[in-house]
Amino acid sequence: MTGKPLQIGLAGLGTVGTGVYETLCRNHDLLEARTQISFAVKKVAVHNLSRKREVEIDPALLTDDWHELVNDPEIDIIIELIGGTQTAYQLVRAALLAHKPVVTGNKALLAEFGSELFKLSAETKTPLYFEASCGGGIPIIQSLQNSLICNNVQRIAGIINGTSNYILSSMEKKGVSYADALAAAQRKGYAEADPTLDVNGWDAAHKALILAMLAYGTPVAPENISVYGIERIAAMDFRFAHDLGYTIKLLVVIRHHEENDALELRVQPSFVKKEHLLASVNGVFNAIAVRGDIVGETIFYGRGAGKNPTASAVIGDVMLAMRDCRHPEFHSGFRTYTKQLTVLPQEDTVTPYYVRFLVKDTPGVIATIATEFAKNGIGISGTTSTPHAAEDEDAPTDSNDLVFMLHACPWGKLKQALRAIGESDCIEPHPVVFRIETLNEA
Amino acid sequence: MTGKPLQIGLAGLGTVGTGVYETLCRNHDLLEARTQISFAVKKVAVHNLSRKREVEIDPALLTDDWHELVNDPEIDIIIELIGGTQTAYQLVRAALLAHKPVVTGNKALLAEFGSELFKLSAETKTPLYFEASCGGGIPIIQSLQNSLICNNVQRIAGIINGTSNYILSSMEKKGVSYADALAAAQRKGYAEADPTLDVNGWDAAHKALILAMLAYGTPVAPENISVYGIERIAAMDFRFAHDLGYTIKLLVVIRHHEENDALELRVQPSFVKKEHLLASVNGVFNAIAVRGDIVGETIFYGRGAGKNPTASAVIGDVMLAMRDCRHPEFHSGFRTYTKQLTVLPQEDTVTPYYVRFLVKDTPGVIATIATEFAKNGIGISGTTSTPHAAEDEDAPTDSNDLVFMLHACPWGKLKQALRAIGESDCIEPHPVVFRIETLNEA
Repeated sequence: MTGKPLQIGLAGLGTVGTGVYETLCRNHDLLEARTQISFAVKKVAVHNLSRKREVEIDPALLTDDWHELVNDPEIDIIIELIGGTQTAYQLVRAALLAHKPVVTGNKALLAEFGSELFKLSAETKTPLYFEASCGGGIPIIQSLQNSLICNNVQRIAGIINGTSNYILSSMEKKGVSYADALAAAQRKGYAEADPTLDVNGWDAAHKALILAMLAYGTPVAPENISVYGIERIAAMDFRFAHDLGYTIKLLVVIRHHEENDALELRVQPSFVKKEHLLASVNGVFNAIAVRGDIVGETIFYGRGAGKNPTASAVIGDVMLAMRDCRHPEFHSGFRTYTKQLTVLPQEDTVTPYYVRFLVKDTPGVIATIATEFAKNGIGISGTTSTPHAAEDEDAPTDSNDLVFMLHACPWGKLKQALRAIGESDCIEPHPVVFRIETLNEA
Repeated sequence: MTGKPLQIGLAGLGTVGTGVYETLCRNHDLLEARTQISFAVKKVAVHNLSRKREVEIDPALLTDDWHELVNDPEIDIIIELIGGTQTAYQLVRAALLAHKPVVTGNKALLAEFGSELFKLSAETKTPLYFEASCGGGIPIIQSLQNSLICNNVQRIAGIINGTSNYILSSMEKKGVSYADALAAAQRKGYAEADPTLDVNGWDAAHKALILAMLAYGTPVAPENISVYGIERIAAMDFRFAHDLGYTIKLLVVIRHHEENDALELRVQPSFVKKEHLLASVNGVFNAIAVRGDIVGETIFYGRGAGKNPTASAVIGDVMLAMRDCRHPEFHSGFRTYTKQLTVLPQEDTVTPYYVRFLVKDTPGVIATIATEFAKNGIGISGTTSTPHAAEDEDAPTDSNDLVFMLHACPWGKLKQALRAIGESDCIEPHPVVFRIETLNEA
């Protein structure tokens, strides 16, 4: 063991905070043996001192004022697990200014204030760690920062929201509707009462911004990412996908276009070939596929959320912080290092597509659609239709679902065609659109 | 950038050495930007100075005496990529004694001299890095050492030999024999002219010893691991496996038994359920599934060998070494930290089994076999047979292949039953035996 015990200040004793405290106690000797550094939790800041806790904790450790963590000269490292962005921002900012390394798992905080906080981290030479902010227990952040450091990242494709993946997996396996799958997920505690951010893609988008920042060395603003959720996926889409050899996943895709040094950045439901490993990532599990110019394809898989998996990531960072803070003049934390990136306009991003129209069963409908695609130079690779299945959709029975598989084309062209098609009286103006992702090499 | 450029000495300019040198040149600016440390390759030791190189390199950098790397006071870090164990051992030993951190990818070296070299690393306080020794470009070593540090590792199961996985994948996909699959792999450069260590399981075993050492903090001697190769797998085994919902993989299994604090450590062809992600790892790819008490199940997937993937791992370590060697009194390298582990005798390891007998087609054969299993308390979960397929095996046509699926039992019991069964004149004495791995949770 080297030196006197390092003192940790923990802010937040919710689900993850409790997991961190428990694990730091339970596996304390293992951690000291592995790091050869002794440590102790000195203070725990909570919102409500009188609340009953799931974990046994000496009341003398508790405080309801987070300033005590920052102001205590004996506290070396601060763990921020209070959630939200307002108090968390004040705490992290104050801690960095006080030269105390910070470990956080707060993706909303990083999405909103990452740019400012990483700048402050560099100015104060005080590291800010955030493994737990993306992919739960999966060591994706440290891998991008360290093991894969020599790689120009060509593409990241990932399933990084467990709730939506759980819903999509149940829809696929049980053939149920989106609403039923969501309700089941809520009953089992895999979806919150308000699941908005999980199902509309924004939770995944926040994590995508963190991955893009790591891979390309500079924070990316949320307005640069295109985000679609899973709310409009119907049971029949899975049947169509299945027949074509695909499954449907909510994918984060980050792709670097070398020819114009621009970044493609998007979150949307995507068709993934059944043989690809990402297609086999089911339930609340997450997986992130990273392709580097040197390493080729790598995939990281694990539990993307939950008390203990997230605690594992937090503690991995705390141990790194303990090592780093023995040498305050040097740290292994994230640094911005590159010029501002150009983000490719969504209109210019190119993939094949699956488009499902709800149409009236009248002559001329297919001709209308096919003509507009042709006008915009979009090739059709296949088409199929089904009389509307009254049992699982709320639509008139004289209507059809008409599916078109389209060859790769820019989104701008497709949008233009869809706008024109939507003017027909016989076609519902908002078709369901999925990208078909080409994820070869895996 | 901090301080004067760090100087690197590279020993070995074979396939991986060339990949490392090329990448350090090609992505030099990226690496300096990400680490904020400037560096240069100062010397490259090769076996033969006059040999033509695949890579353009200033002849002034070359030397045919590795001592120059160790003795040059300006060289800060040494990369060992010469292979073999004799010269490599002398080089690594001398470098550590000279307090120069070493990066190696030499699994044979670590299997033979790991215990001694890690002890020397601790004594000299000079780190020894070895990400490239296991899993090619997959960041499994750093993940076990850092991100997953708070976990008691409950089980590691992995596909960590690309050559054998390539052969098994072709046998599965094309229905060809082992000999044909091996020959095809050799033609394509995925198997060496002498593939012995790849197909007999010992390459995987060397890597398993490294993983066990990392997970449990102490070197394990090679005689403690049970190793079977893939040489006896027949095309028909894949057909049987397929019908039962399995595929066959050469698996490394490391399992900690909490009840007696003992380690199970083995390499052998195993039945893996088709739905498990490991069943979808094909060709030369590797994957390692780690289950921790806190993080749960994680899987790491990528290219397990090859010039560039291995170079990626080596350079990840070199960058870590550069950070660490700014602070020679402290390092992030591996340390032994636990008591000597008890290794579970193979006889006591318990799994279900698949056993295929080659038998004469005469009455009483099944009774003989079933009786011996019963005597040893081994339950039969299923049995199936096939007249011998003359087209893909060298055996008389009056013989049958008889397959038994057995309930979980200790290997010792099964061995005893097989010995008794082998005494029958009608049964070939060496049946093909695979373990059926239970890898739930993924």
